[in-house]
Amino acid sequence: MKIKNILIAGPYESDFHPYLKQLEHYNLRFKATDTISQEDMNWADTYVGFVPNESFEPSKFKWVHTFNAGVNNYLAISGWDHTLLTRTISDFGEKMSEYCLSYILADLQYHSQFEAQQKAKVWSIKTPRSLKDQIITILGTGEIGQKIAEVFSTFGATVNGISKSGQDKAYFHQISNIENAHTILEHSNYIISTLPLTQDTEKLLNQHHFDYLNNGYFINVGRGKVVDTDHLLDALNEGKLRHVVLDVFESEPLTENSELWEREDVTMTPHISALTNIDDAISCFCSTLKKLENNESVSNQVDFNKGY
Amino acid sequence: MKIKNILIAGPYESDFHPYLKQLEHYNLRFKATDTISQEDMNWADTYVGFVPNESFEPSKFKWVHTFNAGVNNYLAISGWDHTLLTRTISDFGEKMSEYCLSYILADLQYHSQFEAQQKAKVWSIKTPRSLKDQIITILGTGEIGQKIAEVFSTFGATVNGISKSGQDKAYFHQISNIENAHTILEHSNYIISTLPLTQDTEKLLNQHHFDYLNNGYFINVGRGKVVDTDHLLDALNEGKLRHVVLDVFESEPLTENSELWEREDVTMTPHISALTNIDDAISCFCSTLKKLENNESVSNQVDFNKGY
Repeated sequence: MKIKNILIAGPYESDFHPYLKQLEHYNLRFKATDTISQEDMNWADTYVGFVPNESFEPSKFKWVHTFNAGVNNYLAISGWDHTLLTRTISDFGEKMSEYCLSYILADLQYHSQFEAQQKAKVWSIKTPRSLKDQIITILGTGEIGQKIAEVFSTFGATVNGISKSGQDKAYFHQISNIENAHTILEHSNYIISTLPLTQDTEKLLNQHHFDYLNNGYFINVGRGKVVDTDHLLDALNEGKLRHVVLDVFESEPLTENSELWEREDVTMTPHISALTNIDDAISCFCSTLKKLENNESVSNQVDFNKGY
Repeated sequence: MKIKNILIAGPYESDFHPYLKQLEHYNLRFKATDTISQEDMNWADTYVGFVPNESFEPSKFKWVHTFNAGVNNYLAISGWDHTLLTRTISDFGEKMSEYCLSYILADLQYHSQFEAQQKAKVWSIKTPRSLKDQIITILGTGEIGQKIAEVFSTFGATVNGISKSGQDKAYFHQISNIENAHTILEHSNYIISTLPLTQDTEKLLNQHHFDYLNNGYFINVGRGKVVDTDHLLDALNEGKLRHVVLDVFESEPLTENSELWEREDVTMTPHISALTNIDDAISCFCSTLKKLENNESVSNQVDFNKGY
């Protein structure tokens, strides 16, 4: 693919500075996303940024590269027949693993109970539980799900997976397809969703699945719209779930009147489990560009049928 | 070694039940620790239990086996010239690793900051830090320290060690002897003490070492008396330390009037980071017994010079 004019959406001029030498044969145009004009889009053959601008049309470009791992905001716009879409692949798996591990270990080690005891000046022994005795189920067995599986299996946990195909993968003890998810869900101590948002996954996690849980602990690091939040709250109220940790929500930032803020059985973080480091994102962009120039295949190309 | 009469101190008769078959050639006597008489001690050639009884005399026995990993309560009593002392070796390293990892990850992932934001209904992004960017120093490079080093190095952290000899060991980037500890301490993000209590280590961690720290985070999973608690509090007040997590204390249970309970920069747990599972302890006793009967060497024999 021949690339010449690259439009970079957002305030990243100084972040690109270390990369200018290797990009010297290209024309770069940096524009704030909300100031991108039709002229800019007509000029560019490539669009780079976290989000599409308001009047974004895929057909204007040969190539679009998103700084995110998730691409649902680009896929919400139609007209990709002749445009390549690539996404940033970074150490998201490592980051999300540490996020999930931090909350599961805090639970196994009774952090909040010991904190309450300290406040009450009570010395009372409670034996922490070990990861090796836990059954952990990961929804989504792609690159990120697999990295999380690797980390937990290092500690001897039994890691199961749920995916569209149910196909076996390394680090998973057992993988079920989504239709038979209940055979795995009902025995899970911890359930982690890494699912991307696609037509197939919207509100996929609802009462139907929560009903199989048994006092489970659920973590969502994928996308918020994969979960039916009303059903999630019902599952908490009915004891199907005992605690949830949410990094993603149906709409973000979470609205002020949401019930989630005030619940003690909900821990929430503002979509931080795998923030893209801008330097990693630019580096991924440059290496993808080099491959395209050499007509090599790129592993971070989005499959429009799968939606990621 | 020929063993015949085994005195078991504490209420463990039912716990021994699954092991009675393999112990059928021995005479077992179960006694509550505070009811053990001179006659019991004269009768027994072996003493087994978590703690010595009040009138404990090592010379009464051929062999003493403690259910603990730490042996300082036995070593406080003199007269071991003709008595073998062995200790329980279990998965203490794994347990302590998960304990340390849980607190370090909770800190890196800003658990308490996000909890406060949730209470205040504030959506404000803060980027978690990764283990791979941390420098972790482990005091004591024995079996437990080495296991903790292995776990943290799996995540790409730089793990340094401090030991008596300063001798290199696997999983450690660099090990210093105690005299040159400052070269390592001053660059540490997290400092973990796994040191046992011996004549050499009593109050070893005092102002002299804390002075080299730079806003450090200290975890003690070893023994409480290794730390000078007054100096520890000074180091917190002076910003040499920014937070401490203590599982062990100079006296346990911690006295009600201790300042530690009320400090927000102190997290405390009631000596639970590596509780001995009684089943593991009995199993370790039985395998040690078998080796002694066969005159094999035992790896869990306490070295009285080292004190562990």
